[in-house]
Amino acid sequence: MEQQEGKTVVTIRDVAQRAGVAVSTASRALSGGSASEATRRKVQEAAEALHFVPNPAARRLTGGHSNVVALVVDEPTDFLFRDDFLAGILGQLSMSLARENLLPFLILAEPDNAKGFEQLLHRSGAEGVVVASFHEGRKFADMLKRFDKPTVFIGSPPKGFKCPYVDVDNYDGGYQAGKLLVERGCRHIALIEGPRDMPTPKERTAGFRAALKEQGLEPIASYAGSYEMDNGLKSMERIIAEYPQVDGVFAHSDKIAAGALHVLDRFDKQVPQDVAVVGFDDLQAARLLNPQLTTLAQPLDDMAEAATRMLAHRLENGTWRVSFQRFPVRLVRRESA
Amino acid sequence: MEQQEGKTVVTIRDVAQRAGVAVSTASRALSGGSASEATRRKVQEAAEALHFVPNPAARRLTGGHSNVVALVVDEPTDFLFRDDFLAGILGQLSMSLARENLLPFLILAEPDNAKGFEQLLHRSGAEGVVVASFHEGRKFADMLKRFDKPTVFIGSPPKGFKCPYVDVDNYDGGYQAGKLLVERGCRHIALIEGPRDMPTPKERTAGFRAALKEQGLEPIASYAGSYEMDNGLKSMERIIAEYPQVDGVFAHSDKIAAGALHVLDRFDKQVPQDVAVVGFDDLQAARLLNPQLTTLAQPLDDMAEAATRMLAHRLENGTWRVSFQRFPVRLVRRESA
Repeated sequence: MEQQEGKTVVTIRDVAQRAGVAVSTASRALSGGSASEATRRKVQEAAEALHFVPNPAARRLTGGHSNVVALVVDEPTDFLFRDDFLAGILGQLSMSLARENLLPFLILAEPDNAKGFEQLLHRSGAEGVVVASFHEGRKFADMLKRFDKPTVFIGSPPKGFKCPYVDVDNYDGGYQAGKLLVERGCRHIALIEGPRDMPTPKERTAGFRAALKEQGLEPIASYAGSYEMDNGLKSMERIIAEYPQVDGVFAHSDKIAAGALHVLDRFDKQVPQDVAVVGFDDLQAARLLNPQLTTLAQPLDDMAEAATRMLAHRLENGTWRVSFQRFPVRLVRRESA
Repeated sequence: MEQQEGKTVVTIRDVAQRAGVAVSTASRALSGGSASEATRRKVQEAAEALHFVPNPAARRLTGGHSNVVALVVDEPTDFLFRDDFLAGILGQLSMSLARENLLPFLILAEPDNAKGFEQLLHRSGAEGVVVASFHEGRKFADMLKRFDKPTVFIGSPPKGFKCPYVDVDNYDGGYQAGKLLVERGCRHIALIEGPRDMPTPKERTAGFRAALKEQGLEPIASYAGSYEMDNGLKSMERIIAEYPQVDGVFAHSDKIAAGALHVLDRFDKQVPQDVAVVGFDDLQAARLLNPQLTTLAQPLDDMAEAATRMLAHRLENGTWRVSFQRFPVRLVRRESA
């Protein structure tokens, strides 16, 4: 057995020897390849007895692979770095991919430069792709199909794509936000939504409406826009002008909530006494705000880890083990509701 | 003259013909290469008369170049996406490089994985490099020297590197912050610094101290840490405990200022009436805060544009035209001071 930094390292050779089979047979049996049931059991018993830990990352390193993984974001590069969710998930993906000895890189071509994008994708020798944001009807879909490497999506993939993906329970997040506001006694509740041409805001709104409906309520107003602070500023101004009785607000992002808080402060409304506010994301903005924001936390680390494991398994074994994982969101109660 | 999408395109050939010189002479004269003063004037007059617009990007495209530019950030990838300054400058660089028909990409290997980093750098076929953050004494320096492609730094390069770079006037920024607080009548002014092992915080502090010294003052307290909010929270707690008479604070980043504002609010200090606060950066956090932050704005767009032009000129002409550009910072007065 090999020695590594003072520890005894059990290798596949040791397992094969103990099981009385060839190394290639032991390897096949352990990785789920073709082997008789008897052989598989014998090899597994030997592996357990020796506390053999397969090291797929190391295995991949010896196979002449590039280990390069392209992170694809179909958004203007400016937005990519400004958006808390995207920046957060890309940071987490970078770390989790590195832990698997994969080498992530991010192409920063603008979405209209699909040709340059494709060029760099091929040149990089990428063996896999993680897509962190995607809009339907752009050239990116064709490009990804042509590139034809194992791909995982963060968020549900567009129609026509049969790709494994990870997601959070946006419906339940909206439901929890609505339930909290109703239970606080809010009866004049407004909604400020994210973009209406993406699936995520629709799911949050559906859950939110369901919670209100249980109490015979519905939103007094509902405006949509970007996930940015400007949407919160503009929408809250309209809401307070048209519905001065508003006593609760659910914002589809923490930045939208930040805009709403500024407007409420300007109109001398106390938060949460006069108007309770719930955000979504629990990213940077939620802590910076004063009062600190009550919001729904997305587990970016778990999502990134899951996407990484799905892709790593596919790269090692040639098959997908998991094709979909959904994570719960968590209500974080601070000061605003 | 060539026709392009219905417009008449003036080429260098037309300019040479009108000036009565060879095409190569006209090209040299216009790009600042060797040419007699008389020839240069003749060619320039011809170019102006014909409204000739040199198109270096198009010229580069015809030369069989990859046009790929690597963005290098010697920071943990998690920090990269969380730090407002880095995220901001990378977003601006992505846009300005794309405008020059260059194709930026960002390697997301962790700083300890210099080997993987170097591998991907070579594989990408990058023709140039922009370094957006750099620490001395790491393996990155050796790697960049081995890669040996035209490189521009954002911020001053480390010792031993003779690279062109762009920077802002951090000394003057610190000076303006100090001057503003003194002029408001603050006499018990504290300082919360960024990392003490980087040049930028040192420059900001030097300018700040100079402004106070003009009035016979010096900071009543000075604590250092990261650029993050936590540093603002911890340092402000110490300051207010040790120096309850504090009436002014200069924070080396907007996020540090955010932490300070939270602590001041907890101690029922009115901002700016009891304690005036000045930040640095004018990025996202400055607008999210309540009260909105008075801060020093860094012109990220100008810095990115300048770095891009320096690199593009070098890639087109084989020589550097500019080796250093410094940009002023601008005081943005909002509510906190």
